[in-house]
Amino acid sequence: MFNPSLIVAGDRRALARLLTHIENTDAVAAEALAWLFPHTGRAHVVGVTGAPGCGKSTLVNELAQILRRAGSTVAILAVDPSSPFTGGALLGDRLRMRGLAGDSGVFIRSAASRGALGGLAHTTADMAAAFDAAGYDKIIVETVGAGQAEVDIASTAHTVLVVESPELGDDVQAIKAGILEIADVLVANKADRPNAENALRALRASVEMMPTSLAWKPPIIQTVATVGQGVVEVAEAVEQHLAYLVSSGERQRREREHLRHELATRLQQLLLDRLVVRVGDGRFNAAVDRIVARQIDPLSAAKQLASET
Amino acid sequence: MFNPSLIVAGDRRALARLLTHIENTDAVAAEALAWLFPHTGRAHVVGVTGAPGCGKSTLVNELAQILRRAGSTVAILAVDPSSPFTGGALLGDRLRMRGLAGDSGVFIRSAASRGALGGLAHTTADMAAAFDAAGYDKIIVETVGAGQAEVDIASTAHTVLVVESPELGDDVQAIKAGILEIADVLVANKADRPNAENALRALRASVEMMPTSLAWKPPIIQTVATVGQGVVEVAEAVEQHLAYLVSSGERQRREREHLRHELATRLQQLLLDRLVVRVGDGRFNAAVDRIVARQIDPLSAAKQLASET
Repeated sequence: MFNPSLIVAGDRRALARLLTHIENTDAVAAEALAWLFPHTGRAHVVGVTGAPGCGKSTLVNELAQILRRAGSTVAILAVDPSSPFTGGALLGDRLRMRGLAGDSGVFIRSAASRGALGGLAHTTADMAAAFDAAGYDKIIVETVGAGQAEVDIASTAHTVLVVESPELGDDVQAIKAGILEIADVLVANKADRPNAENALRALRASVEMMPTSLAWKPPIIQTVATVGQGVVEVAEAVEQHLAYLVSSGERQRREREHLRHELATRLQQLLLDRLVVRVGDGRFNAAVDRIVARQIDPLSAAKQLASET
Repeated sequence: MFNPSLIVAGDRRALARLLTHIENTDAVAAEALAWLFPHTGRAHVVGVTGAPGCGKSTLVNELAQILRRAGSTVAILAVDPSSPFTGGALLGDRLRMRGLAGDSGVFIRSAASRGALGGLAHTTADMAAAFDAAGYDKIIVETVGAGQAEVDIASTAHTVLVVESPELGDDVQAIKAGILEIADVLVANKADRPNAENALRALRASVEMMPTSLAWKPPIIQTVATVGQGVVEVAEAVEQHLAYLVSSGERQRREREHLRHELATRLQQLLLDRLVVRVGDGRFNAAVDRIVARQIDPLSAAKQLASET
């Protein structure tokens, strides 16, 4: 039997076990998360994204140390959406992090894709909820800026850091245009490299193009994460963004919207399951057959099934 | 009044108007697509994805001409998920395509993001359905290999081409690890560039790491798209993949799965809408309030709402 109250009590081994259940999306995870739900809603979830090689991991390492010194407990979730083949390497890197190993106020975990596209979104959100229930003040979700993950991070995190570096060429800059939209704080890392000023100018130009109506305009912070330069300013910007979310009512609004969406999703699943039980698998499959044969379109078939019962 | 039968009759202006309705996700689009549904299911949808600068557009241009010469009509949908700010530029580039302008067997359209993350997935699938109903044999959906788009393309397309080029460094290669999983055909473009052999070797190594149980192992084809070299072989691989899908029963299986999913989605939306009407907005919002206040978890609240009625 799995006892979720151990997690609220701060038992690290119980937390680790729950994270594994979440990764397997099993029934224990669903039950434990429902039980733990009243203990969630306190943590500040910070997403960190950027292309491979931009210095994300180093920045996360430095940021975590600054947050620790400021008295916050920190959970780090390193999400590797790239491939089931490459998954697993990240955690090893994590454990080698300077200054964090052996600190009981820090919990580091990696989550790798198990091959199913999109499945990682739910895992990430549920793991963040587990850390939240376990009492971690700051949850840093680090993910490579590619694929589905960067979109997911925007829906899970309260504050999104997008890390850029001057080394990637113009072609790759173009990839990143899309992720500027999800940035709450922009980090121009490797500020000591040649071309850093050009990259900074390009970032400033992108931010200038954002609608002037935005209540929060992402600040751009230059860093040299390898020597810790600028990371205190990043931590400050993260706090300022949280303060903005709270004072503007945005945090409450997003939280409510998120929970409304979760209720709707659960209801949709329940209602569909019940309808299929009621009409029977046979009738449902017969409707699919008719759609496949182009005798009826999906919307009309849905209306028929919903009305017949 | 919009008359969808014009689209089946091959009216290009009616098709263009429907595509605009789809982009606006309005009621006309939903009605027209339901009407057109019986005319869909014939086209072969080919997704082409890869990082900016890899030569995708040139390859698509050459591939379209080869498909035309083989007697197929071709629709090209250029999806630009990067940003609402940069959207729109693509179509201009498209219209300058050599050899395709003025050909009535070719229809070229761009679809840009309107800012809403994830919204483009539905637009892309619906536009592909419109081209399908209009009788286009091959629908090429071209999208930059970043963000949500590459995941979406795998669910819309029958055959996915992933285009690589040797110019991008190792860091960027790592981004691409994830998209190998969705590749049915791998194109190693810019085969005339220095480092092309290294890039090819890296691709081969990645394919070797794929599970040996795969019934279809993506072929790797070297091209120099700018001079058309290797593109005939790409077209052949695309046909071979289609033949594999058909002969293995995979095409039917995926089509059925896709339509079953669409029926389930429509039903879920209908059932939830009806439940909210039945219990009233007030009760639904009260449940959200209790969840926000952590008095109940979303799953238990959903069970209560579904049972009370």
